[in-house]
Amino acid sequence: MADYCVKGFKTAGRAAGIKPDQKKDLGLIVSDCPASVAGVFTRNQIQAAPVILDRERIAGGVGRALIVNSGIANCCTGKPGMRDAIAVSKMAAASLRIIPDQVLVASTGVIGPRLPMEKIEAAVPELVAEARPTGFADFAEAIMTTDTVPKLVTRQAFLGKIPFTVTGVAKGSGMIHPDMATLLAFICTDMGATAQQLQGILKTGVDETLNRMTIDGDTSTNDTTLLFANGRSGAALDDKKSEALFNEVVRDVLGELAEKLVEDGEGATKRIQITVRGARSEAAAHVVANTIAGSALVKTAFFGEDANWGRVVAAVGRAGVPIEPERLEVFFGDVLVFAGGGATAAAEDGRVAAILRRPHCTIIVDLGMGPAQVSVYTCDLSVEYVKINADYRT
Amino acid sequence: MADYCVKGFKTAGRAAGIKPDQKKDLGLIVSDCPASVAGVFTRNQIQAAPVILDRERIAGGVGRALIVNSGIANCCTGKPGMRDAIAVSKMAAASLRIIPDQVLVASTGVIGPRLPMEKIEAAVPELVAEARPTGFADFAEAIMTTDTVPKLVTRQAFLGKIPFTVTGVAKGSGMIHPDMATLLAFICTDMGATAQQLQGILKTGVDETLNRMTIDGDTSTNDTTLLFANGRSGAALDDKKSEALFNEVVRDVLGELAEKLVEDGEGATKRIQITVRGARSEAAAHVVANTIAGSALVKTAFFGEDANWGRVVAAVGRAGVPIEPERLEVFFGDVLVFAGGGATAAAEDGRVAAILRRPHCTIIVDLGMGPAQVSVYTCDLSVEYVKINADYRT
Repeated sequence: MADYCVKGFKTAGRAAGIKPDQKKDLGLIVSDCPASVAGVFTRNQIQAAPVILDRERIAGGVGRALIVNSGIANCCTGKPGMRDAIAVSKMAAASLRIIPDQVLVASTGVIGPRLPMEKIEAAVPELVAEARPTGFADFAEAIMTTDTVPKLVTRQAFLGKIPFTVTGVAKGSGMIHPDMATLLAFICTDMGATAQQLQGILKTGVDETLNRMTIDGDTSTNDTTLLFANGRSGAALDDKKSEALFNEVVRDVLGELAEKLVEDGEGATKRIQITVRGARSEAAAHVVANTIAGSALVKTAFFGEDANWGRVVAAVGRAGVPIEPERLEVFFGDVLVFAGGGATAAAEDGRVAAILRRPHCTIIVDLGMGPAQVSVYTCDLSVEYVKINADYRT
Repeated sequence: MADYCVKGFKTAGRAAGIKPDQKKDLGLIVSDCPASVAGVFTRNQIQAAPVILDRERIAGGVGRALIVNSGIANCCTGKPGMRDAIAVSKMAAASLRIIPDQVLVASTGVIGPRLPMEKIEAAVPELVAEARPTGFADFAEAIMTTDTVPKLVTRQAFLGKIPFTVTGVAKGSGMIHPDMATLLAFICTDMGATAQQLQGILKTGVDETLNRMTIDGDTSTNDTTLLFANGRSGAALDDKKSEALFNEVVRDVLGELAEKLVEDGEGATKRIQITVRGARSEAAAHVVANTIAGSALVKTAFFGEDANWGRVVAAVGRAGVPIEPERLEVFFGDVLVFAGGGATAAAEDGRVAAILRRPHCTIIVDLGMGPAQVSVYTCDLSVEYVKINADYRT
């Protein structure tokens, strides 16, 4: 098992009784010194209390700890919900003996119910007592909802001769779409950086990774990504070169988290990468890629392992980006299945069927209209997705 | 059984061997005199050969006959596909002894394959011989794909003392979305009207009915709605009043077809009407309604008969229309479940559960921002939808 430790960070996750069946549902990250912090949040206009609170608190640029619960979203809970979010941060702050303004909060789960404050209050001291450098795996488990596996990624790199670490933890599974910020993802690093540097790096990184995937086209009221940097490695961002290196490592961590999130999309049996190239602009490529990625008919065809290129072509045609059907080319994997306005001879051969049986599939669409290219990730739409979401609250 | 007859129209439907299992797959409508014709077509940039051909032919304003096949879409078939579409119209014209330019064609089914021309050629003379005033039910069956029931609607009305009839037939089931024209729907009337009058009435009628429903967010390459008027009733549109009356009857027929299409959406167990009111503009109301109607999470919750108002609220929040969460109200049926930023006491009571068990459900969202209102129809997303679309070609 990988060691996810990051110098100066302690983490924990435990069952507080918010979720049934003694599942872990309360997680903590704490830095042993004040860390710089940056955040990217949902653009949904319905925002959960912890999102509103974190937006205010990261304006200060300093984060010391994060407390997250799963099971209940603390969304559409009005002023009492906001009081609850503040109270949770105060419970953590009191146990950690730090100031509440440097404690961030996040929640994920069902919209509507209030948090069970007594259960959380009872669990916080134990959670704080359990916090340790090797607690990332417990933390990752504690933030899961319909996720089937915890999602952790870590990278080590060197700035000059100084090693630094970036570890990311995420939860996803449903209500995920690229046009709003993202799900829950928390990144810890022992690099030294200002909050302003972190904000630029996080925003760019999220746009190129978490914002380029879709599971079901819905976006959450609780999407939150936070990046904490406590400087304990001794390395610090002090020039363009160090920023570029760190940027690349963070992007890499976010990219791998995105892949894991899509693979574990609700009910997913396959991860599908959709690359649109030959577009007039990156924006145009993105629109076409998202339209294919969001098509229920494309996604069910992949679930059925059916090389139904007609559905891909139909999605391209309705994306709203001008195309010339004669120039359009569609590949499944490396096999050209559509060109010159019709199917190729290879469209129905055994190679395509073999490609569709793989857990990772690729669709390439070449519009033949320009130089721009974008890739996005999606997953298939399965019977299990419907079952999970029909029964979510029962 | 209703009598769908329209003066001067004969119809038929039979099995030509395009679909397996001897299912009806070839349909004919013919008027005993030249009729005025209007059409509304898909806005998908990938268009099937019959769509391209019909667009050209309706420019002449006169239609005499329509031949439709199901099973194969004749789309992405290039120039050979266009030659096939023209050849089918010629076969019908030869058997009917009319000119091919007044024969319209339509196809629906799998994208890619060529039409089996020999089978169609063999079937056309019999199809023509079978055409009769009472053949609408056979015709409706012949245009079905994954539809589980044929869809027919008829209305009689009086212009002064002269009775006239409007009969509509449609097929739908999947790949259906409001922002493009529509599925296949054909309307026959014995009212007298110019092609220009018909075009205005059809466009408005489709915008208010077929374009206000979504089943799965995908739009087809073959969507076609045609309106034929042969004047055989003796009544004719000769003033604003007669146009208004006829417009209302056509809209009524299209509206009932839309309801039938949503009820028979692929795998659907429920029809859901979504009304958004209190919007600043009709366009804004439409965007919010379509976002809710297209949400996989809302649709799966209805399949699970789960009063998950949080998913409705989250869809409203991401629709891209400015809202004030405190003003937002959500009703399931006539029960207010969300107001003032949170759930009402009624949200979890038995009345809501009872509403969700009905085959027809209503969601009302009041944005509290203005006077505009729009209603759209959708259906739930079921396990069966995924199964149908995973296995469609096999």
